[in-house]
Amino acid sequence: MAEDREQIEALIELMARLPGLGPRSARRAVLHLIKKRGALMGPLAETMAAVAANARECLTCGNVGTETTCEICRSVKRATGEICVVEDVADLWAMERAAVFRGRYHVLGGTLSALDAVGPEDLRIPKLEQRIEDEGVTEVILALAATVDGQTTAHYIADRLEGRGVSVTSLAQGVPVGGELDYLDDGTIGAALRARRAF
Amino acid sequence: MAEDREQIEALIELMARLPGLGPRSARRAVLHLIKKRGALMGPLAETMAAVAANARECLTCGNVGTETTCEICRSVKRATGEICVVEDVADLWAMERAAVFRGRYHVLGGTLSALDAVGPEDLRIPKLEQRIEDEGVTEVILALAATVDGQTTAHYIADRLEGRGVSVTSLAQGVPVGGELDYLDDGTIGAALRARRAF
Ligand SMILES: [Zn+2]
Ligand SMILES: [Zn+2]
Repeated sequence: MAEDREQIEALIELMARLPGLGPRSARRAVLHLIKKRGALMGPLAETMAAVAANARECLTCGNVGTETTCEICRSVKRATGEICVVEDVADLWAMERAAVFRGRYHVLGGTLSALDAVGPEDLRIPKLEQRIEDEGVTEVILALAATVDGQTTAHYIADRLEGRGVSVTSLAQGVPVGGELDYLDDGTIGAALRARRAF
Repeated sequence: MAEDREQIEALIELMARLPGLGPRSARRAVLHLIKKRGALMGPLAETMAAVAANARECLTCGNVGTETTCEICRSVKRATGEICVVEDVADLWAMERAAVFRGRYHVLGGTLSALDAVGPEDLRIPKLEQRIEDEGVTEVILALAATVDGQTTAHYIADRLEGRGVSVTSLAQGVPVGGELDYLDDGTIGAALRARRAF
């Protein structure tokens, strides 16, 4: 008899592990899904299974897609010699939505953080250095948050890249102090990119 | 090439249809799922598909489970002659978590609402009347929210059940004015049930 609830309880527990959903909102979400099991829960389960099977990180830049090299890294049009360095994939998506940058990306997967014990070896900085050689990069644009950790990371990367013949710039005008990229509107991101300055 | 993003975009769009998740939190949730695709996204997709295939509403009380008659309606132990009337399944679950009620439930599926044009024919009130006959019910406990719509609905049901030989009570002490059941702690629900009064 308890089997009646077991599957539903298991679903609630898994949903509650999503960022932004607690136990109560997970219960509400599951009840909503059960109500819309034909129109929403079925397609959602199917799409999720497909993404779980196919999604992978791009070995070059860290973007997500369905190939080991993402569509941006595969596109020759985007070999502009510019690489935009972002903290995570959500920031990459925010840049793409703004549609103001035509080069490629490099996803660090975090920022340096003494508090969270994230050191340079935890980020994808050696891979960035390798790409500068391999892809003939002329400009590295640091699109990191205007937070202490973001700016510490930006300074660290700028130091590491010194003497490699690449120009290192950073998003400037328009990024509010303490602000994170993924919260900005497209216009602000565009203004910040156009007004980028030597780092 | 655009296929890379299509599946992921479709998943974000479906996730954004869940209550409490907007486009931004859906994107965050999907990135989290992709990061944890083995440990979380796979099991979540599988469990969701199972619930989508198996979940159904109990034809008697409106609870959700995997049978056409839910485990509470199937249990002879719960044939106490008491039926607790709730607005939705989330409220039923809140009552069950409080573990203070041993009878059965009746899920209305909403409350009367002039604003949302919900009339008596949209709720499961005829079915409640039928159950009173079929199950030898002696007490109907109205566990509805202390809101205008909740109390309008309670009065309407009490009127409909007059002269049928059932005692109609309602949760009383402990339900804060304007409060909804699903937000209450278990102790408050227990106190309200014990102090129930004739309606
Ligand atoms: Zn890539
Ligand atoms: Zn039932």
